[in-house]
Amino acid sequence: MPVRDNVEIGLNRFARRGYDLDEVSIVPSRRTRDHDDVSTAWQIDAFRFDIPLVTSPSDAVVSPATAVAVGQAGGLGVLNAEGLWARYDDPTDVLRRLRQAAGPDSGPPTALLQEVYAEPVKADLIAARIKEMRESGVTTAVRVSPQHTVSLAPTVLAAGVDLLVIQGTIVSAEHVTTTGEALNLKEFIADLDVPVIVGGAADYQTALHLMRTGAAGVIVGVGADSWSTADAVMGIRVPLASAIADAAAARRDYLDETGGRYVHVIANGRIETSGAIARALACGADAVQLGEPLRVAAEAPGGGVWWDSVAAHPRLPRGGTSAPVEPRGSLADVLNGSAESADGRTNLFGALRRTMAKTGYQNLKEFQRVDLVLGGNGAAVAGPGHLVG
Amino acid sequence: MPVRDNVEIGLNRFARRGYDLDEVSIVPSRRTRDHDDVSTAWQIDAFRFDIPLVTSPSDAVVSPATAVAVGQAGGLGVLNAEGLWARYDDPTDVLRRLRQAAGPDSGPPTALLQEVYAEPVKADLIAARIKEMRESGVTTAVRVSPQHTVSLAPTVLAAGVDLLVIQGTIVSAEHVTTTGEALNLKEFIADLDVPVIVGGAADYQTALHLMRTGAAGVIVGVGADSWSTADAVMGIRVPLASAIADAAAARRDYLDETGGRYVHVIANGRIETSGAIARALACGADAVQLGEPLRVAAEAPGGGVWWDSVAAHPRLPRGGTSAPVEPRGSLADVLNGSAESADGRTNLFGALRRTMAKTGYQNLKEFQRVDLVLGGNGAAVAGPGHLVG
Amino acid sequence: MPVRDNVEIGLNRFARRGYDLDEVSIVPSRRTRDHDDVSTAWQIDAFRFDIPLVTSPSDAVVSPATAVAVGQAGGLGVLNAEGLWARYDDPTDVLRRLRQAAGPDSGPPTALLQEVYAEPVKADLIAARIKEMRESGVTTAVRVSPQHTVSLAPTVLAAGVDLLVIQGTIVSAEHVTTTGEALNLKEFIADLDVPVIVGGAADYQTALHLMRTGAAGVIVGVGADSWSTADAVMGIRVPLASAIADAAAARRDYLDETGGRYVHVIANGRIETSGAIARALACGADAVQLGEPLRVAAEAPGGGVWWDSVAAHPRLPRGGTSAPVEPRGSLADVLNGSAESADGRTNLFGALRRTMAKTGYQNLKEFQRVDLVLGGNGAAVAGPGHLVG
Amino acid sequence: MPVRDNVEIGLNRFARRGYDLDEVSIVPSRRTRDHDDVSTAWQIDAFRFDIPLVTSPSDAVVSPATAVAVGQAGGLGVLNAEGLWARYDDPTDVLRRLRQAAGPDSGPPTALLQEVYAEPVKADLIAARIKEMRESGVTTAVRVSPQHTVSLAPTVLAAGVDLLVIQGTIVSAEHVTTTGEALNLKEFIADLDVPVIVGGAADYQTALHLMRTGAAGVIVGVGADSWSTADAVMGIRVPLASAIADAAAARRDYLDETGGRYVHVIANGRIETSGAIARALACGADAVQLGEPLRVAAEAPGGGVWWDSVAAHPRLPRGGTSAPVEPRGSLADVLNGSAESADGRTNLFGALRRTMAKTGYQNLKEFQRVDLVLGGNGAAVAGPGHLVG
Repeated sequence: MPVRDNVEIGLNRFARRGYDLDEVSIVPSRRTRDHDDVSTAWQIDAFRFDIPLVTSPSDAVVSPATAVAVGQAGGLGVLNAEGLWARYDDPTDVLRRLRQAAGPDSGPPTALLQEVYAEPVKADLIAARIKEMRESGVTTAVRVSPQHTVSLAPTVLAAGVDLLVIQGTIVSAEHVTTTGEALNLKEFIADLDVPVIVGGAADYQTALHLMRTGAAGVIVGVGADSWSTADAVMGIRVPLASAIADAAAARRDYLDETGGRYVHVIANGRIETSGAIARALACGADAVQLGEPLRVAAEAPGGGVWWDSVAAHPRLPRGGTSAPVEPRGSLADVLNGSAESADGRTNLFGALRRTMAKTGYQNLKEFQRVDLVLGGNGAAVAGPGHLVG
Repeated sequence: MPVRDNVEIGLNRFARRGYDLDEVSIVPSRRTRDHDDVSTAWQIDAFRFDIPLVTSPSDAVVSPATAVAVGQAGGLGVLNAEGLWARYDDPTDVLRRLRQAAGPDSGPPTALLQEVYAEPVKADLIAARIKEMRESGVTTAVRVSPQHTVSLAPTVLAAGVDLLVIQGTIVSAEHVTTTGEALNLKEFIADLDVPVIVGGAADYQTALHLMRTGAAGVIVGVGADSWSTADAVMGIRVPLASAIADAAAARRDYLDETGGRYVHVIANGRIETSGAIARALACGADAVQLGEPLRVAAEAPGGGVWWDSVAAHPRLPRGGTSAPVEPRGSLADVLNGSAESADGRTNLFGALRRTMAKTGYQNLKEFQRVDLVLGGNGAAVAGPGHLVG
Repeated sequence: MPVRDNVEIGLNRFARRGYDLDEVSIVPSRRTRDHDDVSTAWQIDAFRFDIPLVTSPSDAVVSPATAVAVGQAGGLGVLNAEGLWARYDDPTDVLRRLRQAAGPDSGPPTALLQEVYAEPVKADLIAARIKEMRESGVTTAVRVSPQHTVSLAPTVLAAGVDLLVIQGTIVSAEHVTTTGEALNLKEFIADLDVPVIVGGAADYQTALHLMRTGAAGVIVGVGADSWSTADAVMGIRVPLASAIADAAAARRDYLDETGGRYVHVIANGRIETSGAIARALACGADAVQLGEPLRVAAEAPGGGVWWDSVAAHPRLPRGGTSAPVEPRGSLADVLNGSAESADGRTNLFGALRRTMAKTGYQNLKEFQRVDLVLGGNGAAVAGPGHLVG
Repeated sequence: MPVRDNVEIGLNRFARRGYDLDEVSIVPSRRTRDHDDVSTAWQIDAFRFDIPLVTSPSDAVVSPATAVAVGQAGGLGVLNAEGLWARYDDPTDVLRRLRQAAGPDSGPPTALLQEVYAEPVKADLIAARIKEMRESGVTTAVRVSPQHTVSLAPTVLAAGVDLLVIQGTIVSAEHVTTTGEALNLKEFIADLDVPVIVGGAADYQTALHLMRTGAAGVIVGVGADSWSTADAVMGIRVPLASAIADAAAARRDYLDETGGRYVHVIANGRIETSGAIARALACGADAVQLGEPLRVAAEAPGGGVWWDSVAAHPRLPRGGTSAPVEPRGSLADVLNGSAESADGRTNLFGALRRTMAKTGYQNLKEFQRVDLVLGGNGAAVAGPGHLVG
C-alpha cells in the first residue's frame, strides 16, 4: 500500500497530513482555450451526462420531480429510497412542517427530524417513485443504505432503476458482524444487472476494496457538508482533496490490476461553490455529489432549508440543519444559467467550463492533470461587497 | 530519551512541534463492525468500568451524589478532598451563591471564588463524604493536591477510598525544596495499600518518572479546559495529542523496563465532545478525565456553571468561569443516552462506541492503533443550523 | 523548467506550496540609510516614473482626468478602453447611479453593473479619451482585452498611446481556438511601434512565454483584489508572493536567454497598503498595479465605491463591489502626501521610501534583494485604536 | 553568519521562517521547585533589579513619577527625553486632552498626537526631569532617538543618568548618509562613561553589530505592540521568538569573540501578559521591555489610554492609539501583587516566578534553557467566562 507523508505527532505515533479542498487551488499555466471548445461530459457505464453531477440523496433537495429536473439539466438525480418519499404517500405536509419549524437563523429542530423519519419505509411507495422518474425518460437512480440493501433491493430492482447507489456515511467492503446478517457487497454486486455506485470511503485502501467489489463508481467522503458534525460527534474528518487524490490512485492501481476496469471516483463533502467543484475534479474526481448547493433552486423540496439524512439519526444525529435561503433561480439556472451574482453559487457548471478554458483543458479527464497550488488567501466569499442578488 | 521532531525557531534554539486534539482526527479504513459487538470497558488495578471515564475533581460537576451517579453510569467519579464539600458542612448555599453571581454571559467573579475557597478544609468532612460515597457501593476516589497529600492522606485512607488521585496542575516526581517538607511520591506510594492516579504531566520524561513512582495511572495534561488561562498567565501550553502519544510511549517503555507493569494514561484537557474523547483514546490514552462536559447534566452541583479548581487560586488564578448552560438531560443521558442534538455533547460514550464500530475496532486497546489524519476543516460546531435542542 | 517545493497532497498528486504577500515580510538588517538618499524611480522602455505605480484599468478609480493626475503624481495611469468612458459620451450619470445604488454596507448590485456595461464600446470615444490624456503631457496608456485587441488596436494606436496594456484576468501566449480568430500575441507585438504590457500571468512558464512575445512588461496576478471571487467561482487562486518570485525568475532566465532584454514584472492583486507595496517589490516586482487603494482619493470617479472590471461580466461575474469610503485626501496626498493616520492607506510611496531607508537600500533594483521573513503576526490593521482620520 | 531554516517562496527567492511569541510555549518537564526558592533578579552593568523589567519610553505609561515607582517596584523605568515631559513645562493638560479625545472604543486621533508632539523639545526640561528622578534614589534612565543622540547627549549626561537608552524603531550600527551627520555609535559609546542600551534590532547580524559598539544591552524588536501598524505601513514584521533566539545566538558568539563580554538582550514587542513575559525570557531574553501592559496601573500618566511614540510621527505614523481601560490596581500590584483575575494582566512577575517554579528553574539564566513547544491552542484569552475583575 502506498503511503503519503506521515507526521510524528508524538513518539512513534504517526498521522498522515491531509488537505481539504479549500487549501488547494488551480493554477492557470501556459495555455488558454475558447470555452465553447470545452466539454464537461461524463459517462459512467452506459450512461452519459452533460455535466459531472450526482445529487446527494437528501430529501431537502431531491424529490422525484427534482430528480427528473436534474436529469433534464444534464446530471444524475438520486432519490433516497429510505427518505420521506418512501415513508409518506404525500410528504408535502411533512416538508412544509419542517420548513415552517425553521427560524430566520435556524433550521428545523433535530427532534422534529427524528420524529418524521420514525415513520416506516414502504416498498410500494419506493416502486411508485421509481416508476414516476422512469416515465420522464431520464436516467434513474435511488440510494439505499448498506443496512437495508438486502431487504430493499428486490423492490428497487423490480421497479427498474438504471443505477443503484449504496451509500452510508462510512462503508467498507469488509463488515464484521457476529449476527451473520451483513451485506456481502462483492457477492451482491456480482449478481446484479445494474451498475452500482457505493460509498462513502475515506482512504486509498477502502476505495480500492470497494472497487474490487465490482462497483462502477465509488463515493469518496463521508457526506460532511458544512452542517455535518461528524468531527464533533465521532472525531472523524476527511480532508477531501487528499482523499480524492488517494482514491484516484486506487483507481489507477485497480485499472492496472484488472487490465482496464475504470471505476469512477465521485467526490462528496463540503463542495458548495463552482470553485469547489473545479477543485474536486482537479484533484482527480470524475464527478461530484452535490446536495446543499441545490437548495437555492426554486424547485428544492425543502424550500431552501438543508439537512443531510444523517441529521435525522434516531440515536446519534451527526449533522445540523440550515436556516432557509431565498431561491436564486430554477435548477437549470443554478446548474447552467447566467450568474447574476459573483459568489460561485449559480451557473455552477458554466463556471467549471470557463475554468477549464482558462487553463487550456478540453475535457474532464485531461483536466485532472491541471497544476495545483497549496496555500494562498482563500477568500471564498469576498469583502463587504454586494454578492447576493 | 526519544525525541520528536524539533524545529529551530531561532539560531540553535529548538522547540518540539506539538499537536492539539483538534488538529488530528480519525480515519475510517477498510473494515466496519456492528456496534453491538464493541466494548468500551476499562479496567485499572482491580477496578472495572463500562466506560473509560474519570471525572475532574471540580466542585462544579462532582458532589458525593454525582460521584455515585457517575459510578452507576459506568465511570469513576472523583471528589475533590480539598473542595467545597470538604470546607462546608453543607455547601448548598455556597453553590447557590456562585450560581447566582453568574450572568447570562459571564460566570461567577474570580474574587467570589477566592472568597468561598478561603474557608479551611476539615478532615471530618472529608471522612464523611467518603463514607457517603462508599455506602452506595460504587468505586470511590478522591483527589488531594501534592502539597496536602501528606497531611490529608491518613484521613482519606482511614475513610476507605478505593483509589487515590494526587493531582495538581503540574506534578513532577522530583520536587526540589529548601524547606525539606516536600512529598516524596515514590516512598509515599510504595507504602500505600490503595492504587494511586497521579498528574498532570506534560511530556514523556515526566510521565515516565511518575510511572516509576509506582502509580497505577498517570494524568496527562495540565487541566487546561477552554476557560483555562495557563497560557496567558504562565506561558504554558500542552498540545494534548502529542502529550498523550508521548505518555503512551513512556507507558510502552516502562512496560518493557519492568517486564510487564502497565500504567494507565488518562488524558485531561479541553476534551469537550464525544469526538474529542474518541481522538484522545485514538492518540493512545486509556481513559479520559472530563469536567466541563458534565455540567450539562441535570444533577451538576454548579447548576450549569463551570470552574476548574485552579480558577479559585488565592494569588494567581489561572482559569475563568463559565456562564450557565441549560441542562441537557440526566448524567446517564449525557454519558450514554440517545442524543437529541448533533453537537457531540450528549451520548458521549454511545458515540465513542459507534466510532469504534465504523472503524472496525472491538475494544479500546485495539482502537489505540486506529489511523489518524492531521489537518482538515475542524468544524467542531457546525454552521448556522439547529444544534442545541 | 525549475520547480518549487512540491507537496504530495494525495498519492502521487502534487501541489506547489504558494505564499501570499501577507505571509512574508521585510526584515531590516545591518544597515540603515537617510531616506532623502533613496530613489523610488522606475523606467520601462523610454518612459521614466518617479514611483513604480501602474493603475488598474478600473472605471471606479481611473477616468481620463485621474489618469492625468496619476501621471502628474509620478505614476502611470491606465484607462480602460473597454470601460464606461468608451461606452458613454458622458458617463457621469452612470457613475452617479452606481454610487447611489451602494448602501452604507454594500456596493452597487452586480445586475446594475451588468446593465450599464451592456452599452457597446465606441471607437470614437476611445480616440477622444486618449486625445484628452495626451494633451496633458503625461505618459498615456490604455488597456484592451485580449479578445478585442485586434479590433480596437487600430483606433488606439492611431490616437497615439505611449504604452498599450493588453490585460485579461488570465492571458496566455498560446490561446487554442477552433474558430481561428485568436490573437497571436507574438506577431501582434512584433508589428507594433509602442511597447506593450501584457497579463495577467500566474506562473513561471506563462510569464516566460509572455516575455518571449516581445512585451516590455508582464503583469503577474489575476486581478484578485479583496472583492475578487475568482476562488469561489473558478477555483483559481494565485499566492502572489510566490507568483512574483517565479516571474522574477523568468525575467532572469529570459535576460540570460536574450543576452540582455529586461522585461518588467508588474504585480497585481490585493496590494492595498504601503506595506503590501513594499513586500511586492521585495519579492521581485519592478512595479505594482493598484486599483482599490486609489478609491480613497477625492478625485476617484466611483466616489469611493470599488469594482474591478470582471465584476461586470455578463454571464460569470467574478468580483463583488464595495460600499463607499470617505475620501482621505487628493490623489497626490494618497500617493505621496503626509499621512494623518497609521493604516498604510495614505502616503503610499513615502512609506515605501522609508522602508527602503530603514533597510539601507538606495533604489528599487537593489531593494529586490532585501531579506524576507515568513510568518509572524500579520496585524495588518491594528487593535481597537484610532486608525482612520 | 549562521542561517536559520530557509523556505523557497518562489524560484530562487528565499525567506526565513520566523515564529512569534504566541506560537511557542513552555513545557514543564521532570522537576518542580518551591516558588519561594526562585529568583527573578536581573543585573546589567552595575545595576541590579528584582525583576527583569525595562519600561518602554512611552508618555502613556512613563512620567518621572511612574519611572520612580517602577524603580521602587524592582524594575527600570525609562523616560522619553523627547516626549511630552521634555516639551511642556507641565504636560498635565496635554495628557488630559489626549485622554478626553478618546472615546469608549477609540483612542485619541493621530492628528491630535501629531499636534501636541509638534512642540519643540527643551534641554532644560530634560535636565529637570532627570534631576527629579535621581533624587528618589532609583536607577535613572532616559531614552533618546538615534537622530538626536548627538545633540541631546550632553544635556542628558550632565544631568546624571545612570543608563542611556538609544532607541528608534530600527537602529543599525551602520547608518549610511550623504550629509555626513550620522551618529557613529561605536565612537559615541566608547567615549561615554554610562552604559548604553541600544535598539531595536531585528536579526542576528544587526544585534551582533550593535553588541560590537560596546553597548551593555541590545533591544530586540521594533516596538510592534498590538496597535503597531509597521506591517501595514512598511511591510516590516519581526516574529519575536525567532528574533530573540537569534539575538541570544549573537550574544553567545560575541561572548566567545570577546572572551567574556556579556551583552544583555532585551525583548520588545507585543509582550502583554505574564505568559508572554515568561515565553520571551524562555526564548533567550535577559529582560523584557514593557509599555502597554503598564497602562492598567492607576498611576499611568495616560489614564489608561495607550500610544507608542511612533504613533505621533509627523509624516508617517506607524501605530494606532487605544481606548482607555479601567485601572487594575497600583503599579506595584500590576507588577507583583496578588491577582484578582485570571487574564495574565496582573501580578506579572509573580506569575513569572511561579512558571519558573513549576518548571524547576532557580534563576533567569537557567530558565533560558527551559523546553519549548511549538503549536497548540493559543487561547491567550479564555472562553466566555469572567476574566476581568
